[in-house]
Amino acid sequence: MRSSTSDNRLLTGFVVFPGFTALDLIGPHEVIVRGNTECVLAAATLDAVLSKDGIRIVPDVTFDACPQLDVLVVPGGPGQEAAQTDSALLSFLTRQSAGARLTASVCTGALLLAGAGLLKGRRATTHWLAMEELARLGAIPCNERLVWDHPFVTAAGVSAGIDMALSLVAVLDGATAAQRIQLAIQYDPHPPFTSGSPDTAPQEVVQQLRSTSRFTKESA
Amino acid sequence: MRSSTSDNRLLTGFVVFPGFTALDLIGPHEVIVRGNTECVLAAATLDAVLSKDGIRIVPDVTFDACPQLDVLVVPGGPGQEAAQTDSALLSFLTRQSAGARLTASVCTGALLLAGAGLLKGRRATTHWLAMEELARLGAIPCNERLVWDHPFVTAAGVSAGIDMALSLVAVLDGATAAQRIQLAIQYDPHPPFTSGSPDTAPQEVVQQLRSTSRFTKESA
Repeated sequence: MRSSTSDNRLLTGFVVFPGFTALDLIGPHEVIVRGNTECVLAAATLDAVLSKDGIRIVPDVTFDACPQLDVLVVPGGPGQEAAQTDSALLSFLTRQSAGARLTASVCTGALLLAGAGLLKGRRATTHWLAMEELARLGAIPCNERLVWDHPFVTAAGVSAGIDMALSLVAVLDGATAAQRIQLAIQYDPHPPFTSGSPDTAPQEVVQQLRSTSRFTKESA
Repeated sequence: MRSSTSDNRLLTGFVVFPGFTALDLIGPHEVIVRGNTECVLAAATLDAVLSKDGIRIVPDVTFDACPQLDVLVVPGGPGQEAAQTDSALLSFLTRQSAGARLTASVCTGALLLAGAGLLKGRRATTHWLAMEELARLGAIPCNERLVWDHPFVTAAGVSAGIDMALSLVAVLDGATAAQRIQLAIQYDPHPPFTSGSPDTAPQEVVQQLRSTSRFTKESA
């Protein structure tokens, strides 16, 4: 196992770009940072980055200055569309992923990986509204909460990043470490509704989201 | 229903203090910001605030300049211990909660509310390791994922803030709004382990956390 930090721990980097979804980033960060790894946020500059909903987060390192990561985590969000044409960001993903032990995405972060050519012919998942776009970009979309196609692991929409990160920590540090983290963050979810999947949500709610999605606007 | 924003939406404020737990804040923010409310982060100053695990978040408004909120949300984290003696923060909580329609906490954020005298004789919950401390501060601890004692709603540890926020949006905007948000963030949790509660986690994992907790150090 390679290691990039002075105290023999792994180095995990989270990509941050304007218009990211905050929970795509913080969900997995909250889990992974409690494992045996140092965590940094990498962005184009060191200026605060604005999430899609007004959260301003200060990055730790620029894409250019970021050392080789052991684990790369890519969140999604509506900013993914602009990021898709950002050559500095895409080349950061390509370069880091080539040297990383694991590469992970949450939600439409998978589209960034696919857009960089990294998921060609690989099984992957993304937000339920973006599955066709994922296929168009060359991945094999799988309707699952998280998909391992080693060394890649992709998570479904937003909150799925928490489940993915627990699975990732189990791979890196073992099941007991992941179980300890799950208990520390008391991740014993009890959603008050059963509306978390298009298969179980009321159909009018599914239609409402489908009709306003940036991925299905034309077909709606 | 009172309303503090120009476009007739509610105003929700999230308290930020050094050493907060990032997911305590971002979990409910991701849900609530998608409802019919404007969201702001309030802190002692406008400088970036460092979470317990190195996330730096830039607040939107100071405690002094913050207008009356409709909804107040208080995250927890190890910084709660120092915040407990911060008279500016506690008086902000007291003042805002008195005028707010709803007051919510996540994890050890409940200890801040209780420390400000706001949960005296009220049913409440917090992180499973902090339940005795919650009782010591005058609340009636309930071993539940989230506890409504109107106009207060308290959530258990860290990730429980997501469940709490969906319940809060349902109260404010109705069940359909909450279901739409749940589907948008694809909150159909499938934790890879059943270790999210001390009742279901392996007992050695429970003991490990209990023995290193700041709330049980003396008894461990």
